[in-house]
Amino acid sequence: MSSPLFSGLIPPLLTPRSADGTLDLGSLERLINHLIEGGSHGIFALGSSSEVLYLTNAEREKVLRTCVETIAGRVPLIVGVNDMTTARVIDEAQRLLAIGGDAIVVTSQFYAVDNTFEEDRHFRAIADAVDVPVFAYDVPVRTKQKLPLGLLVQLAKDGVIAGVKDSSGDDVAFRQLALATADIEGFAAFTGHEVVCDGALLSGAAGLVPGLGNVDPAGYRRLFDAAQAGDWESARQEQDRLAKLFDIVFVQTPSVSGGAAGLGAFKTALQIMGVIESNTMSQPMETLGSEEAERIRAILASTGLL
Amino acid sequence: MSSPLFSGLIPPLLTPRSADGTLDLGSLERLINHLIEGGSHGIFALGSSSEVLYLTNAEREKVLRTCVETIAGRVPLIVGVNDMTTARVIDEAQRLLAIGGDAIVVTSQFYAVDNTFEEDRHFRAIADAVDVPVFAYDVPVRTKQKLPLGLLVQLAKDGVIAGVKDSSGDDVAFRQLALATADIEGFAAFTGHEVVCDGALLSGAAGLVPGLGNVDPAGYRRLFDAAQAGDWESARQEQDRLAKLFDIVFVQTPSVSGGAAGLGAFKTALQIMGVIESNTMSQPMETLGSEEAERIRAILASTGLL
Amino acid sequence: MSSPLFSGLIPPLLTPRSADGTLDLGSLERLINHLIEGGSHGIFALGSSSEVLYLTNAEREKVLRTCVETIAGRVPLIVGVNDMTTARVIDEAQRLLAIGGDAIVVTSQFYAVDNTFEEDRHFRAIADAVDVPVFAYDVPVRTKQKLPLGLLVQLAKDGVIAGVKDSSGDDVAFRQLALATADIEGFAAFTGHEVVCDGALLSGAAGLVPGLGNVDPAGYRRLFDAAQAGDWESARQEQDRLAKLFDIVFVQTPSVSGGAAGLGAFKTALQIMGVIESNTMSQPMETLGSEEAERIRAILASTGLL
Amino acid sequence: MSSPLFSGLIPPLLTPRSADGTLDLGSLERLINHLIEGGSHGIFALGSSSEVLYLTNAEREKVLRTCVETIAGRVPLIVGVNDMTTARVIDEAQRLLAIGGDAIVVTSQFYAVDNTFEEDRHFRAIADAVDVPVFAYDVPVRTKQKLPLGLLVQLAKDGVIAGVKDSSGDDVAFRQLALATADIEGFAAFTGHEVVCDGALLSGAAGLVPGLGNVDPAGYRRLFDAAQAGDWESARQEQDRLAKLFDIVFVQTPSVSGGAAGLGAFKTALQIMGVIESNTMSQPMETLGSEEAERIRAILASTGLL
Repeated sequence: MSSPLFSGLIPPLLTPRSADGTLDLGSLERLINHLIEGGSHGIFALGSSSEVLYLTNAEREKVLRTCVETIAGRVPLIVGVNDMTTARVIDEAQRLLAIGGDAIVVTSQFYAVDNTFEEDRHFRAIADAVDVPVFAYDVPVRTKQKLPLGLLVQLAKDGVIAGVKDSSGDDVAFRQLALATADIEGFAAFTGHEVVCDGALLSGAAGLVPGLGNVDPAGYRRLFDAAQAGDWESARQEQDRLAKLFDIVFVQTPSVSGGAAGLGAFKTALQIMGVIESNTMSQPMETLGSEEAERIRAILASTGLL
Repeated sequence: MSSPLFSGLIPPLLTPRSADGTLDLGSLERLINHLIEGGSHGIFALGSSSEVLYLTNAEREKVLRTCVETIAGRVPLIVGVNDMTTARVIDEAQRLLAIGGDAIVVTSQFYAVDNTFEEDRHFRAIADAVDVPVFAYDVPVRTKQKLPLGLLVQLAKDGVIAGVKDSSGDDVAFRQLALATADIEGFAAFTGHEVVCDGALLSGAAGLVPGLGNVDPAGYRRLFDAAQAGDWESARQEQDRLAKLFDIVFVQTPSVSGGAAGLGAFKTALQIMGVIESNTMSQPMETLGSEEAERIRAILASTGLL
Repeated sequence: MSSPLFSGLIPPLLTPRSADGTLDLGSLERLINHLIEGGSHGIFALGSSSEVLYLTNAEREKVLRTCVETIAGRVPLIVGVNDMTTARVIDEAQRLLAIGGDAIVVTSQFYAVDNTFEEDRHFRAIADAVDVPVFAYDVPVRTKQKLPLGLLVQLAKDGVIAGVKDSSGDDVAFRQLALATADIEGFAAFTGHEVVCDGALLSGAAGLVPGLGNVDPAGYRRLFDAAQAGDWESARQEQDRLAKLFDIVFVQTPSVSGGAAGLGAFKTALQIMGVIESNTMSQPMETLGSEEAERIRAILASTGLL
Repeated sequence: MSSPLFSGLIPPLLTPRSADGTLDLGSLERLINHLIEGGSHGIFALGSSSEVLYLTNAEREKVLRTCVETIAGRVPLIVGVNDMTTARVIDEAQRLLAIGGDAIVVTSQFYAVDNTFEEDRHFRAIADAVDVPVFAYDVPVRTKQKLPLGLLVQLAKDGVIAGVKDSSGDDVAFRQLALATADIEGFAAFTGHEVVCDGALLSGAAGLVPGLGNVDPAGYRRLFDAAQAGDWESARQEQDRLAKLFDIVFVQTPSVSGGAAGLGAFKTALQIMGVIESNTMSQPMETLGSEEAERIRAILASTGLL
């Protein structure tokens, strides 16, 4: 297999807020350092885990600026560009890349009623408009459409995309993508799924982008290193421990949405661990309360993080 | 029934582009006049029919400014505010209302993985942040979630929303909404469906927001007036003619997406009728070609528009 | 418009059970008479409203036999044939038609991963195998696929189907179907939606198949007659009253499924009205309790049925 | 981990038909022997791969009788019981188990509009009604609903189900299921996905039920044995080869449905390999033609099967 531009553990960075709801850039700085010191090979900013869809443009810029300054070149910085159609994505990409970033991550169009022809033109127009590598972000739980395997492979072969961040939950298509792109120089398939990273690496993943990696970057780094060394039994055991840690996302009360449950749990864990100051969520998401925090604390303890 | 703030025919304005893809504000001006002269009771700008999701922020502002100047107070101007979450919608609403507008239309969140509690807070926060009436826009084909009947009724009772623009295709829920809100002073349920306006009015709709109304506003005005007069047989006949006219949206070749087919057909019809100069669509949508234009011309002729 | 083979009010018959869960054929007989005396133009047996999917083959036969004997030729009997693929539907159709029936109603395949080509062959093979008219039953809430408009129109033109029973909730497609088949001799489009029958008749429906028609056949008959007479204001008022009666389907507690809520409410209403003895549902559906019965009783009273 | 009742390679048996469409029991017999000689640990009859949904009851019985006689106790026989609701499944299970079978496999209800409470009662009632172990078959591509993780774990803990056959494509939920049931004596999680068996085994799968196992049982047996021995590199290489073989399911022309493409490809491969006489599909599915057969032959050759 060829060597991709980016590989290894690249957690999708959360966006801490103070209790009053404003951005907490001090906590963000500490979180970035937590990730780098935990062994991350890169940082993915302004992905779904950052609550990017809830951030105003001004907030997105502040977050990115803090990333650029805090990372200070220690690891690559990949930037999520989140908007619904081609021209708007290009606008946003240019605005953000003026601040910094080594690559961008872009979804299919959403809110649009489009087809594969439009998606093809979408990615090609974006790649033409920027000077950094473009990753396709396949996240049907949000966009409500899976990027077709054939389209991804063609875009990869044509050098339009440098990789895929797969959060589709479709491990069959992921294996097929990894196989079909194995010979494409520099191409990388990343998985965004926290509890099957060992299987994804066995399938040929170049790297991991787990939201839970905010909480335990060192664990995911050990998992990645074991897999690289061919020690699948250790990789599996680390994954099983991390899968138990992932149970923190299921502690929420019914009024908390699916979107708020996972990110809220990650924030609450990091608050308990002393990395960030508050677990406050972006409006209109609900912030987890003290009862949920107790249950998360217990899971952190039982999986070795406290 | 009480009298709503807005009622009657309020077409969702298209956004003409020149053949080179730039906004064609001259054609936009002519189209606005075509709608007002055709008997429209109001104009809905920056809805899905305007390709709003494909417009950059700068383009949205230019379109709205042209609307304000061209309408010049002759009829009310309702403004679509299109973004994915609460804070971003508020940002966008304030930016656009600084230019003009008598009410705003807002969808549920999208790209979010939310729940009814979040949706409730979403609409309340937006209504708190603006000084004009807020309409909920129910368009599950784009947002991928239907706004729950119970939520809409509660928001209506609490005065949070002044009405609903229904493009859900769920006529059962529409009837239930109309019945449940019949006694709420000023509340208005609008249908966005071109071919069942007579039935929607029978169900209690206060008005019509048909994309096809760009092509034949006078027809929809006659339909509305007949229904108001209790002459349902004439309303039905006008609706049947308009349903045949609506066949223009089905002439596209397979490479044209669902989103581009309808709006492309409306633009092509208006180009043939001499109202706008080009039927060019926003990137990355495909513009209809000459073969499709011929078929559209035939339908225009057979339904009395040429 | 041509005259269809079947038209008017054709309620989809419920299947009463005794408190011990066995079929209650005495109540079934009374219910059939209630429908005919209420002015029904026909009876649709073994549709979804009969809980057909929960009936064993032996139970389906008993129900149909009771229908044949009780109706005794007073009105036409249309029979639902409910199975997942072509050969199984043909088997079931022949088994049931040996007992009786003037037409059959058949859905698309379900549980299958099929396409329009297969659906086309499905309906043609079934029509070839039986001697009675075949109606297509479009019920995507169960089959998880809408029958395409183009397929239905082609099957209608080729004389394969004599009509459509539409429970798709897509009033736009229903209007288009009615328009496209208006000139086909004998073809009938029926709506299965309880609260928009007036609009469906305005759209060109030949008849009504409302589950709620089990509870108030006389009301739906008045609605139909008013529409036939062009008295749309009376039709609308009757429809609004029936829409309020339809609120009985929303009284259930959260443990009751969507499928059990509607049919359970109809059964409970008929039990309160003295038409059937028990509101017991088929296994594993939950039967509505006394609290729900009280709420249903209040709605029956407020809409003039008690 | 505890030792499950059934484990290893248990292919879901295809149902050969002669060119005239009738069952070809001679080919079925040869196919069963092909599977056992290829190292299968068991046979799963009347699953989706058998086209069970397209088989009449008489055909289902003939297929099962041939299985019982041909297997003759050499390996366990697991029987799919395919119907839409509880009472119908019980009827079918008792009819089939009178012929033979060591366990049954049952899906959620389908065509029903049910909820988790009904599903819970569904599986419990079925388990009460039969004397053999019950496996839950999670196949949302057909049933249109994923069996909830919490329900499966509770049914496992209560001894209602002896395992799950997972064809959900949700590897995250599969890992969570395997983790949550790891300590339940005798419980087995099987994967039905052809191209990620190595990852599933790493996640804790007890066995494999790959449709492609009809074509190359020996390959899947080698994969399973390598994983059992902890030789994940060999397992991965075997899986990669089998994933390339799986490309035979993508050779179909557009008129072939998704359901017919996969099974049609398996049948065509087995015809080319001389195991069965014809690749004829059940009505109304389309049978693959000679052009597709040539492409399949090439893939068989390149993956070492010719």
